Amino acid sequence: MDTIEIVGLIAATLTTSSFVPQVYKTWRHKSTRDISLTMYLAFLVGTILWLYYGIEHGSLAIILANAITGILVIFVILLKLRY
Amino acid sequence: MDTIEIVGLIAATLTTSSFVPQVYKTWRHKSTRDISLTMYLAFLVGTILWLYYGIEHGSLAIILANAITGILVIFVILLKLRY
Repeated sequence: MDTIEIVGLIAATLTTSSFVPQVYKTWRHKSTRDISLTMYLAFLVGTILWLYYGIEHGSLAIILANAITGILVIFVILLKLRY
Repeated sequence: MDTIEIVGLIAATLTTSSFVPQVYKTWRHKSTRDISLTMYLAFLVGTILWLYYGIEHGSLAIILANAITGILVIFVILLKLRY
């Protein structure tokens, strides 16, 4: 694997895992007033379309990154709807 | 352009533009307590790496999407640091 692809994998890991601290913070503080539901709904639809794109291209990196991101984004949406 | 690439472009437009309502909400309400700074810092680093990946691959879609996302994420970080 060349350096550029490793950079891509690190990039995907960062943009995907970045949602973990938001889920944790939201779950811990049970407050979501400042979080935009519109942002997370648009992001979720985008993630689902990326997932489809990844499946069609047979790209495991795109599939994995977006499947995990989608789950984390759904968590934020559920917490937003609850609190 | 085939259907799959159009889906990819819609996906990129959605995941990029999703940050606009968050910037607007944060700027309007001047409150960022519920937003995770760690999330946005990790996302910003990821976006910068994606930008590098896009430049190296000569992919205008990846470059554009991540340049715009990066600017929007910087806005959220600046608002988070201020309010």
